[in-house]
Amino acid sequence: MSEGLLIIISGPSGAGKGTVCKELLSMNLPDLELSVSATTRKPRTGELEGISYFFKEKEEFVQMINQNEFIEYAQVYDNFYGTPRSYVQNKLDSGKDVILEIDIQGAMQVKKNNPEGVFVFIMPPSFEELKHRIISRGTDSHKDILKRLHEAYREVLLSRNYDYIVTNDDVKTAADKVRSIITAEKCKLQRTKIDYESYKED
Amino acid sequence: MSEGLLIIISGPSGAGKGTVCKELLSMNLPDLELSVSATTRKPRTGELEGISYFFKEKEEFVQMINQNEFIEYAQVYDNFYGTPRSYVQNKLDSGKDVILEIDIQGAMQVKKNNPEGVFVFIMPPSFEELKHRIISRGTDSHKDILKRLHEAYREVLLSRNYDYIVTNDDVKTAADKVRSIITAEKCKLQRTKIDYESYKED
Repeated sequence: MSEGLLIIISGPSGAGKGTVCKELLSMNLPDLELSVSATTRKPRTGELEGISYFFKEKEEFVQMINQNEFIEYAQVYDNFYGTPRSYVQNKLDSGKDVILEIDIQGAMQVKKNNPEGVFVFIMPPSFEELKHRIISRGTDSHKDILKRLHEAYREVLLSRNYDYIVTNDDVKTAADKVRSIITAEKCKLQRTKIDYESYKED
Repeated sequence: MSEGLLIIISGPSGAGKGTVCKELLSMNLPDLELSVSATTRKPRTGELEGISYFFKEKEEFVQMINQNEFIEYAQVYDNFYGTPRSYVQNKLDSGKDVILEIDIQGAMQVKKNNPEGVFVFIMPPSFEELKHRIISRGTDSHKDILKRLHEAYREVLLSRNYDYIVTNDDVKTAADKVRSIITAEKCKLQRTKIDYESYKED
């Protein structure tokens, strides 16, 4: 059984990585799946164990951290979020391509342990558009907006650590580019297994 | 002006590189063009100078070889065929992506001088299918068929020098893979030019 691709899709807040992933998954590519994260936050109405998240108690999560059972994890305020290593590895071993939609700190953790992954950075189309998107959410104070913009600039610089940059001018175009990246990666010489001897006439 | 991609599409006789290129060009991708070769063979009815070929006299062609004006060239029986360097470079400089549909010997010549090119090997789906395609042309003698099959095996081994392998089970699928490779290559970090400073808030 051939091993699947590990595809890391990340980018600054406001770049639209979530909508790009949703669009990509709506294309129903064979063997492509979004990874499921583990978290210590409580389930919200409608969220399902193993589909929305793997819900964990804090002690269990910390024990998993100590046993190196996460490809990447982070603490956000009082809650932990992480990508379980065995879950992802089982999917890859069974030939599935797995998408991790994660922030840049998480992606840099993944890169240390899984450099063979395909790292895609979703770039906001421009500073003006990023500003517009962050402001139009309407949930942030002026101070928070400035903080987010500064953080976004710092994160844009980190795109230099990725394999591919996809500028998100338009969600459908961006998702098609990610689809193309996945298709192209599967055609790479190193990933193809040709039985050369079968082309030899007897 | 950003420089275009040089895309080399080649493969053994019978792999179907010509039909894959035709299908790809029918997708009308912006900025994608098939290169025009120079040749010393006489124009056939309907062939146009600068569109079908650049038709040259033998002396002129040999002079161009001596002045290193071909990216690659070959002699086939009494005629020369080659890809003019300045023609391709002008296209690339103006931002066009240029496809060279050439045989494997030619591709290996291009690789020496243009290692930044994107080298795509069109692989016949199987030995049986290749045999079928070569025989069903009906133009070759039994001895010629055996010679072609042996040559094809030797050429399949050379696919190890390419960046991408596209198996031509189905022309539309193969052409879509090449399209994806072009799209993905344009998203590669090294090929994108991000103005990082424009993301810095004032």
